[in-house]
Amino acid sequence: MRLGRSGLAGRVGPDYTTGPLRPRLPDRPAIGYNLDDTPWSDRQQESAVPPRRQADALVIGGGIIGLLIARALHQKGLTVIVLDRDQPGRQASWAAAGIVGDAAPWDPSPPALLHRRSVALYPTLAAALRAETGLDIEYTTPGWLIPALSPDEAQALHQQAVQGQAAGYDLAFVQGAELRALEPALGERVIGALLLPGGQVDNRRLVRVVEIALRQADVPIVSGAGVLAIRQQGGRVTGVHTLLGDFSAPVVVNAAGSWAGQIAGCAPPVPVVPQRGQILALRQGPIPLRRVVQKIGDPYLVPRLDGRIVVGATREYVGYDASLTAGGVAWLLQSALDLVPSLAEAPLVELWTGFRPMSPDGLPIIGPAALDGLYYATGHGPNGIGTAPATAEIVAALVTGAPSPIPLEPFSPFRFGEKGAPAPKGH
Amino acid sequence: MRLGRSGLAGRVGPDYTTGPLRPRLPDRPAIGYNLDDTPWSDRQQESAVPPRRQADALVIGGGIIGLLIARALHQKGLTVIVLDRDQPGRQASWAAAGIVGDAAPWDPSPPALLHRRSVALYPTLAAALRAETGLDIEYTTPGWLIPALSPDEAQALHQQAVQGQAAGYDLAFVQGAELRALEPALGERVIGALLLPGGQVDNRRLVRVVEIALRQADVPIVSGAGVLAIRQQGGRVTGVHTLLGDFSAPVVVNAAGSWAGQIAGCAPPVPVVPQRGQILALRQGPIPLRRVVQKIGDPYLVPRLDGRIVVGATREYVGYDASLTAGGVAWLLQSALDLVPSLAEAPLVELWTGFRPMSPDGLPIIGPAALDGLYYATGHGPNGIGTAPATAEIVAALVTGAPSPIPLEPFSPFRFGEKGAPAPKGH
Repeated sequence: MRLGRSGLAGRVGPDYTTGPLRPRLPDRPAIGYNLDDTPWSDRQQESAVPPRRQADALVIGGGIIGLLIARALHQKGLTVIVLDRDQPGRQASWAAAGIVGDAAPWDPSPPALLHRRSVALYPTLAAALRAETGLDIEYTTPGWLIPALSPDEAQALHQQAVQGQAAGYDLAFVQGAELRALEPALGERVIGALLLPGGQVDNRRLVRVVEIALRQADVPIVSGAGVLAIRQQGGRVTGVHTLLGDFSAPVVVNAAGSWAGQIAGCAPPVPVVPQRGQILALRQGPIPLRRVVQKIGDPYLVPRLDGRIVVGATREYVGYDASLTAGGVAWLLQSALDLVPSLAEAPLVELWTGFRPMSPDGLPIIGPAALDGLYYATGHGPNGIGTAPATAEIVAALVTGAPSPIPLEPFSPFRFGEKGAPAPKGH
Repeated sequence: MRLGRSGLAGRVGPDYTTGPLRPRLPDRPAIGYNLDDTPWSDRQQESAVPPRRQADALVIGGGIIGLLIARALHQKGLTVIVLDRDQPGRQASWAAAGIVGDAAPWDPSPPALLHRRSVALYPTLAAALRAETGLDIEYTTPGWLIPALSPDEAQALHQQAVQGQAAGYDLAFVQGAELRALEPALGERVIGALLLPGGQVDNRRLVRVVEIALRQADVPIVSGAGVLAIRQQGGRVTGVHTLLGDFSAPVVVNAAGSWAGQIAGCAPPVPVVPQRGQILALRQGPIPLRRVVQKIGDPYLVPRLDGRIVVGATREYVGYDASLTAGGVAWLLQSALDLVPSLAEAPLVELWTGFRPMSPDGLPIIGPAALDGLYYATGHGPNGIGTAPATAEIVAALVTGAPSPIPLEPFSPFRFGEKGAPAPKGH
């Protein structure tokens, strides 16, 4: 494993502030912050006048991966600046459905471990953010149902339950009256279901609350700071060149999601492409859905604490075309109605799209790159929300010279070769 | 027939202006007016300071029916004030799909005549509005297809074509290669189609352009002037009481659409209820749709000159609940895809709802009411855009003592009895 090559273990970052100090926020209660979709005023202020240009670490990308990495590095004592090409938390992290769960608790592979460790970290994260900001990310674990719509699916899920139970895990195959009692909203086409632990987080709140926690901790998050290139000297990172000028640090983390491959000077290349997801929200129908319901082959229904059900999502390779389509939305709605017919009269309250950062093999790209001090944390595909806490823990460990809590080989930035693999094809 | 009871034939309205004169617009080209969805600044100005409080006629409702009536009365020489509870042209007239056509040219019934006469008036209306404002309402007549999706439907439509042709009308039943050549976008499920003359108007433009034409002619359109009650004296209308105070006129036309039944003092009652329509717009797919396609039992697809296809609409009695629903949108999209499969990747660019003003028998309510000087013009259901020009012509004739161009018995305000009939039920 390539760990800690540019470790900063034990360093407590001095304040490299070179520009005018960012004005302190008045001492107001955190719950007064605006959680809705309008920009938070500090963002624009920071865009215009980056408060600092030098730090122990620069994080490229203000999505949930980048923000939690910045938080983890800050907690290790490093000074950090987050650079976002746009506004933080408004791309995949905002578009996601927020499922948090461990679908295969018996699976010892690193991708499963990444999920499992994140699931284990979520309660602590939610509590810490609540304590720091007074805000709730609405992380809940009502359970997770994989419905069977055919005898074949039922048999496969039943077998999975038997194996899981034999190995001591908390899952069950439910059907008939038991299933109706557990989840009365499911329609007759659902003949059985695998019941797993798991749940969801309101990912829009999550990313906003982490942003607020960072700002409270005086970690600058610079909007409109699209990173054009990595700066280096003698094989070692020295910072980045952005649309807002240069920033300097001995550590740079590329957590730019679907845009991670567009930054010059990254070696090896980051072969991440955007995968479009179309997604929508209904209000609960007359029979409330209680658990996350994830159909084999999608879509999924995620009931939120605010009374919405998020229904997602398509998986399409169409570049950065953010359109909703007739076929995509028809499929989402029809599939949701197949699973929960009583949603027919449920108000359709929002539709949107997002871009999942997809690597050629569908696994995240996490670890040190070829340049000393450069790290990647992207390519989380459909699982960014579910795996962000463990990813942040891993990157913070690597940067500070500690061992990764889980094996990283499958996530190596070098696994695609020096040129990166071709982009995935298909719909 | 009850015609011309309160005729004002030959009167040329004096200027009753009592308040400060409305400031003249600068002499700017009409094409500079804002056609998009933001409020036109003059509206707000007029809301705050109604320019006049007295006129020859008050028109309640700034939808397409009310605006065209105001235009027709103004052209007859009357002074007119339009009163809208909200903003003009933002309810059913804005929500509609804008189909203009004569589906049964052999039908001599008054409802068919109302359609036919409106179809005949549209080219002149479009040309006049263009001349007055420099703006185009995009009235086009590419034809109108009623597709057959089953042998039964095909046989019925074929028979209709034979009968229509025998009576000398321009319609045809097309199938096979001929149909594919006419409309290559139609999918394989369409086995034939009745081809009729007809087309569509961009109804959002229409209502905006008529509003602009009226404002250019100094006809006040007062926003936010919800009418609470009809004022009368000795069996004769004297004006209305509104949220913005009283307005006076010897003629009042209730063209308040789905809200026409909420105005006190209307005798007989106006038993109109809102019928919700859910409707959406796609961008054209790879094989452009050329004609209006209207499935038996809905929905319909209306190709616009701006590259959109409007797909509508549900017919639901849910009061004034303006929600879109999962079932409604799924049905619209799936039906559109059944007719035109190549729309699967077409961007879904807008979804909205509107309220059709529905009378108990589904026919418009047009004619004089019990009070001298009070007229009704509402209840046009799904056909408001298609029948507005003839409705305006009729009301202007009645008000000025001229005969109606078509028989009005089926539209009589008195046909539901003194209490109005019960509201229709069903989905």
